[in-house]
Order: sequence, then structure tokens, then C-alpha cells
Amino acid sequence: MIQQTPLAALNERVAAVNDVLNSTSVLTWDSRTMMPAGGAENRGHQIATLTRVARDLLLSAETADALAAAERSVESSAPDAAERRMVAQTRQAFEHHRRVPASLIQERAALRTMAQSAWIEARAKSDFSIFAPHLEKTVALARAYADCIGWREHPYDAMVSIYEPGETAASLGRLFDVLRAGMQPILETARSRPAPRSDFLCRDFPEAEQRAFGLSMAGKLGYDLTRGRLDTAVHPFEVSFTRDDVRITTRYSRNYLPASLFGTAHETGHALYEQGVDPAYTRTTFATDLIGLYAVGGTSFGAHESQSRLWENHVVRSRTFWRLHFPELQRRFSDQLGDVSAEEFYCAVTRVEPGFIRVEADELTYDFHIMLRVELECALMDGSLTVTDLPAAWNAAIKRDLGLDVPDDSRGVLQDVHWSTGYIGSFPTYTIGNVMAAQMMEALRRDQSSLDAEVAAGDYTGLADSLRTRIWRHGRRFTRDELLRRETGRSLDPAPYLEYLRAKYAT
Amino acid sequence: MIQQTPLAALNERVAAVNDVLNSTSVLTWDSRTMMPAGGAENRGHQIATLTRVARDLLLSAETADALAAAERSVESSAPDAAERRMVAQTRQAFEHHRRVPASLIQERAALRTMAQSAWIEARAKSDFSIFAPHLEKTVALARAYADCIGWREHPYDAMVSIYEPGETAASLGRLFDVLRAGMQPILETARSRPAPRSDFLCRDFPEAEQRAFGLSMAGKLGYDLTRGRLDTAVHPFEVSFTRDDVRITTRYSRNYLPASLFGTAHETGHALYEQGVDPAYTRTTFATDLIGLYAVGGTSFGAHESQSRLWENHVVRSRTFWRLHFPELQRRFSDQLGDVSAEEFYCAVTRVEPGFIRVEADELTYDFHIMLRVELECALMDGSLTVTDLPAAWNAAIKRDLGLDVPDDSRGVLQDVHWSTGYIGSFPTYTIGNVMAAQMMEALRRDQSSLDAEVAAGDYTGLADSLRTRIWRHGRRFTRDELLRRETGRSLDPAPYLEYLRAKYAT
Repeated sequence: MIQQTPLAALNERVAAVNDVLNSTSVLTWDSRTMMPAGGAENRGHQIATLTRVARDLLLSAETADALAAAERSVESSAPDAAERRMVAQTRQAFEHHRRVPASLIQERAALRTMAQSAWIEARAKSDFSIFAPHLEKTVALARAYADCIGWREHPYDAMVSIYEPGETAASLGRLFDVLRAGMQPILETARSRPAPRSDFLCRDFPEAEQRAFGLSMAGKLGYDLTRGRLDTAVHPFEVSFTRDDVRITTRYSRNYLPASLFGTAHETGHALYEQGVDPAYTRTTFATDLIGLYAVGGTSFGAHESQSRLWENHVVRSRTFWRLHFPELQRRFSDQLGDVSAEEFYCAVTRVEPGFIRVEADELTYDFHIMLRVELECALMDGSLTVTDLPAAWNAAIKRDLGLDVPDDSRGVLQDVHWSTGYIGSFPTYTIGNVMAAQMMEALRRDQSSLDAEVAAGDYTGLADSLRTRIWRHGRRFTRDELLRRETGRSLDPAPYLEYLRAKYAT
Repeated sequence: MIQQTPLAALNERVAAVNDVLNSTSVLTWDSRTMMPAGGAENRGHQIATLTRVARDLLLSAETADALAAAERSVESSAPDAAERRMVAQTRQAFEHHRRVPASLIQERAALRTMAQSAWIEARAKSDFSIFAPHLEKTVALARAYADCIGWREHPYDAMVSIYEPGETAASLGRLFDVLRAGMQPILETARSRPAPRSDFLCRDFPEAEQRAFGLSMAGKLGYDLTRGRLDTAVHPFEVSFTRDDVRITTRYSRNYLPASLFGTAHETGHALYEQGVDPAYTRTTFATDLIGLYAVGGTSFGAHESQSRLWENHVVRSRTFWRLHFPELQRRFSDQLGDVSAEEFYCAVTRVEPGFIRVEADELTYDFHIMLRVELECALMDGSLTVTDLPAAWNAAIKRDLGLDVPDDSRGVLQDVHWSTGYIGSFPTYTIGNVMAAQMMEALRRDQSSLDAEVAAGDYTGLADSLRTRIWRHGRRFTRDELLRRETGRSLDPAPYLEYLRAKYAT
């Protein structure tokens, strides 16, 4: 029998953790797309058990021994060698989970069940007082969790590090100051213009034709259906069970065509990232978020979002795209779109109109929704804002940023599921995705002079190949900022995003 | 904090094993119904890891301690008390798996991959020599496995005990002698009759209508779709992820209506068993095959098959059923079945015609296919038959039992997937299912005088209620023969089955 190397022995342990986490993802996908209603309760048990098993495998004595041996064996490797990084990532995750007691995980899970049903009731009745005590406990447990993980400047830093390593309350504050200052005048210009015609988006669009167009579009963008599939879900998502099985979902609104159109483009962007990870990284730390306990190839939530936003907004929500592909859409929906031009269609899907609801927001106002949430959850975490004062603070921020008066809490502070599930710290990643997408596009255009001409001709292979080479194939080997520095010469920078928004919405 | 009882502590461990095994079942279901082709390789890793995790959880020091403590705590319970049986079942499984070294499991898994691709090639080329060396290893590893588990009279006893506890080579030999002797004259009578008209079964039946009829039929029989769903699979099966999520699959042959019709009825029977298990038994040993490492509520493979066969053959493949429901089938397929009467349809779907292929066999000849396989695998296991001599032995048995000359090995010894996957010992359970189904029906008719009238009126609730009370709800609490003795006054008895076949095919 051949003696296994210490690294191979460690990677075998990591592969088992990856298998369990991918299995959890299959169970989650099934529960949101296929599962009959009756299965919900026991599916909850199954997912909880698999998550516990993954953590136990990671923290087992066998993994600890394999990890120590692997660390000794890579001591002489170059600091950024792949094998050294694999070992370091495992060590980091090991120490992370060792610091969080199982009792705290159980408390958070138990609270989540209670908080979610309270939130559903509170939102239906638009009564914040029903949700408030659960949110108080959620914040308290998030504080306890942050204290376990450890933080220096702000307790929020510990939470955001799970989703977007490297970011802190302070770094986000600086980023958001620049964005707010840059975006306010763009928004003012856009709002000062007459609203384009958009009534035709709300006509009757049969689901089968929406699906056919969506599949055709996803294929054009490079989504490989021999390693994927498209299904329907109430809250659309992308999920991968290794790079070789990457599934997307969408929601068909019969009376609002953009929902499935841009939703499918968005999830396709996520899927391209996962399908593009180097096959050699399958079942390794480079395709496993060992800290978040999630089998994923994207290097951070923000980096992942950058790819979905790039394809959704830079490629599909563009004049070029519809100039080229509107005729196909029109052929499929001749009754509904016969009297519409490509230009009218583009103007309608880039219409700017501030509103209360984040998930319905246009591209330009979306980040304001995100920034106010981050501002508020930071303040909740450090205690400068109480849960009691949260609704008023929410409404004041909406007034300040978008000039709107929130009519009730269900269209205000109660609209998002996130806080009821205990997720605090994931919101910033949406805006980081937007910023990173523009920064990458700027770099690609600079390095690849033929890019715009190819895309204008409907050939997306060059764009996909570049993104695969520069980002996707690396999986989680490099951090988001390492990738950005390699590919754009600098870490996260809001300037290209502001430039992109200005060109699209204020010129 | 309330102190857990020792039994509750053990059951928590068992519940985790059940969760992992149910998760494995979700992965298997997905791989056969939904998974894109690309996902196959890594899905194999995921299923293998979950199976290993389940075994490791069962054999862990924590489970050993909890088991010992629980054994002490139930010492004073009645011998057949539920809690005592739960503990005993866990102990039995613990000892079973402790006897089988992980290395042997790995060897069998590695061989399975090789043997399956060899079998596919061998069957395609009808060349037994390609598969023979793998079958030799399979038999050798099955012998090694049987020796680990332990056996007294025959190595086959150890293998069959996994699927059908209580049966042995000797007990099966006795059963089959009675069946062969009883069935030969029935088969002779049936074959002496002129074949009924059956051409209309091969007309063009669109899939959507087949599916609609199948769903309607499953609903009539009592299948609860809020805890289930019907999908398409190449090799149809039923699978449960607890009683609250029990899924069936079928295969639509556009030019052969009976495939989906009776296939759906068959899987519905399996599903009714699983959906009918006492909810209190969810995630306990009474809903988990801890020896076979399979999350299932049926007490043995044979008992499970008895319920699928009961609904498929006693209920749906009956003159009564088609007298009542043929008009609905005719309405859905007016072009195809407009010139056919209910009686003609019944005669066509009960036509007897010996053939080479087990899965295409009629109800009367099916068991001959099973009995010859059991005879041969017994002989392979004890060494009285070599793999080299197997094809000749197969062909001789088909000639002896069905009077047919096997034209080539792909229609003979190479037709079944079972041996290539290492499953030796599961074949008898098909015939045991047939025998048990008839025995239960005889008892139900005796005790419930209104049963036939209800069924003739299309009311299947009384039948389902009786089976739920007598069999389904008990899950794995009682063995198959314990159930039969409680409900029919005797253990497995072939007489009612022979009586049923005689009445249906030779009167």
C-alpha cells in the first residue's frame, strides 16, 4: 500500500466535509424546488444533522492530527503555494469553529425557527412589536457569536468576515461614503428626466415562453446545461453541488416580464462562476467555504455577486444586448411586444424610480437600500441603536436617501427575511458585488480591445473566457482583493462603478 | 436543564443516523430523476461519504455508551415492549457492523464500480467472459462478507438475512419446492388456452395522459400527494425521506401502456406502506434499517414487496378494477381504446406468456425467474457451482421451468443488474412479497366481509385502513413473521398464493 502524504491525508478529510456540505445543498435545493409540503419538518432535522456532522468532521481529532502533520509538511513551501494555502485555510476554519461552542449554535438555530414565524406574522400584520423581542435576542446572540470569533474595532467586523473576509465596519463606512456622495447627483439627474414608457412590461407573458427564452439566453451566456438545470422557486437562487452540477432557479411572474428575464441572467452569472472553477480544486478547500460551512467555489459573497451583477447588469441590462436580442424576445411574444422597439424596451428595463422595496429596486437605487441596512445593523451590533428605535431609524434613512415616507413597517423594516434567520453581516456583499463587477469590466475592456465589438456581435465567449481565466478558475484560492489586485492593479475601488452608473443613468 | 433518559439519549443518536440515511436517499432520488449527467461522479463521492458517516455514527464510542446505558434502563421492561425492541435493534445493528471491517466495505465498493461497467459492456456484447472475472470476485467478497456476519448452515443465510431476516437457504428451498409443485400445473393450464387479443396495448399512448391517469389512480388508492410526488425514472422505484415525504417514479413507454399503469400501481403500494407508518416512529429504529443502512419504514424487503404486489396485482390487475375504471382510461385514450371492452383489457393485462426477461414477465411466470436466480446464487455462494458453469446452469433452468431455449446471455444470465452491484441475497424477497400479499388478502377477506363489495364499488379506504392498522403503522417494530402470525395466525404460508393464482389463471 502506498503511504499517503500528510497533505493528501488532510485533503481526504476536507473532501469528506465537502461531500457532506454538498449533500446539504442538495437537500436545500430539493426543499425549495421539489419537496412536497409535508416534508418540511423532517427536512429541517436532516439539514441540521448534516451541518453538525460537517462541523464535527472538521473539528475531529483525526482532522486535528492530519492538519498538524500537513502544516509540518508544507513549512518549506512558498508562502503562496497552493498546498500551503489549503492547509492555512483549513487551520483558519478549524480555529474559527473551535471558538464557537455547540451550545451557541443550537441556541441560534432554535431562535431562528421562532424568529422566522414571528417575522412572517409581523410582516403580514405590519406589526413590528411581534418581531421585536426576537430581533433583540438575535442581536444579542450575534454579539455573543462575534465575541467568540473575536474582533478588534467593531463587533460587526466578526460577522461580516464570515461573508466578506477583509471588510470591516470602518472599511464599509469609507466605501459607502464615497458611493453615497457619487450616486446622489446621478440619482438626481436620472429622476429629473421624464419616465419612459414601460406599460408593456406588465402584459400577459405565458410562463413556457419565458422559460424558453431564459434557457436560450443562459445558453448564449455560456451556462452548460449538461452540468446544470433551471427550475422554479419562490425566492430564486443558484446552488452548486461541485462544479459539475450547478443549478439555477427563477420565478415567473406572468404579468411582469423582467422578473424572470433579469433573474435568470443574474443566477446564470452565479452559475458561470461555479461551473468555471478549476476541476482540480473539486472537493478541496478551494471549493469549500469551511468557515461558513457551505460548499461553494466563489471566493466571497461579494465576489460571487460581482459575477451575477456583471452578467445581469453590464451584459443583459444593456442597450447592446437588446439591440441584438430583442427581435428574439419579440418573436416569442409577438402579441405582447409587437408595438415595442428595442430602444423602448431597453429604456423601460433601465427606468429609475425610488421605491420602498429592496428586491423591486432599480439598478441605481438598489445600493441605497443596502447601505441603510448595513448602517442600521452596525448600530444594532454596537448598541448605539436599540431594536425599539429601529423602525424610526429605518424610516428616517429612507427619507434621507430616497426622499420617501415609508407607509408601514411591512414596506419598511419588516420587508427582508435576513434578520429573522440570524444573518447579520451579509447585506454589504450585494453592493460590493456591484462595485467589483464594474472594476473588473473596466480592466477587461482595457486589456481586451475587441471585447465590446464581440459582445455587440452577440459573442460572449471571449468575455466568459477572460472571467474564467482571471476569476472563476481560481475558486477560493485567492481572496477577493488578491484577485482584484492581480487583475486590476488595486483592491476594491468604487470609481469604475460610479463611472458606469454615470454613463448609464446620467448622460 | 432536564436530564435526558438513557433511551432518549440513544434515540437521539439513532435519529441522527436516520437523518443521514434519509439524506442519502434524497441524493439517490435526485441522481435518478433530476441530476444533470455531469454530476454523476461527484454524487458517487457524496453518497459514499454519507454512508460512511452513518456507519461511523452508529459505531461511535458515544453510541456504544448510550447503547449500554439504554440496555440497563430497559432491563425490566416487558420482552416485547417498544423501548426494549428499539434498544435490541440498535444492539443487533451495532454488532453487525462491528463485525464487518471498513476495508471489506471499501473493497466491495471499489469492485462495484468496475463490475458495473464490465456488466454493461458484457450485456451489450452478450459476452459473459467480460463479466465473469468480476462476478468471481463479487462472489468471493460476498463469501468473505458472509463469514464476517456469521452463518450456521449456509453462507447464503448471512446474505439473505440483510434483506429478509429469518429466511435461510433451507427455508427458501422448502418454500420454493411447494411453489414450483403448485405453480407448474397452473402454468400448464394457462398455456393450453388460446392467447387473448392484446395488440391494443401497443398503440400510441401520449405520456401526459398516461401520467394523468397514473396520478388519478394513485390518489384513488390512497397515496397522499401532500407527502409525495410522482416523477419519471429509467428504472422506477419508490423512496421515502420519512413518512412525510414518500416519492414514487414511473417510466412511460409510449407504445406499451401497461408499463406505467402497473408500474405506478406497484410503486404506489410501496408508498402507501411508508406513508402509513406511525408518526411517533419517525427517526427511530422502527423507521430505519440500521443493518442495511437504509432509512425505510417497511419491516423487510419481502414485506415491502407484499404491499406493492397487493395493490398492483390483487387490486389493480383485477377484473373488478377494470370493470370499474376502464371507462376512465377509455375516455383519456378514446382513439386508442375505443374498440376495446373492459373484459378484453383485463384479459390482455393478465395474459400468460413465458419469456426470457424477468422484468417483462407476467404475474404467473415471474416467480420462476426469481426461484432460478436464488437457486443459482445459493450454489455460487456454497461453491457447488462455478462462475464458469453459470450460463449453462441458467439456460438449463429456464428450459426446465419455462420450456424455453435462451438465445444468448444478454437475454439470459446477463440480464439483471443485481449481481454487478454486489447484491446477492435480495432476489428471494420478490417472491416472498407475492406469497405474503396473498396471505394477507385471505386474512382481510375472512375478517372483513364487506371488503370485496367496497373494492368492487371503487372504495379502497377500508382496505387501506386495514393494512395501515395491521401492517403499515408498525413500521419495523415487528418482524415479517411476527406480523403474519398476529394477523393471519401463521408465519409465511404459500397456500393462499397458490389458491389465488389458481383462481385467476386456471379456472
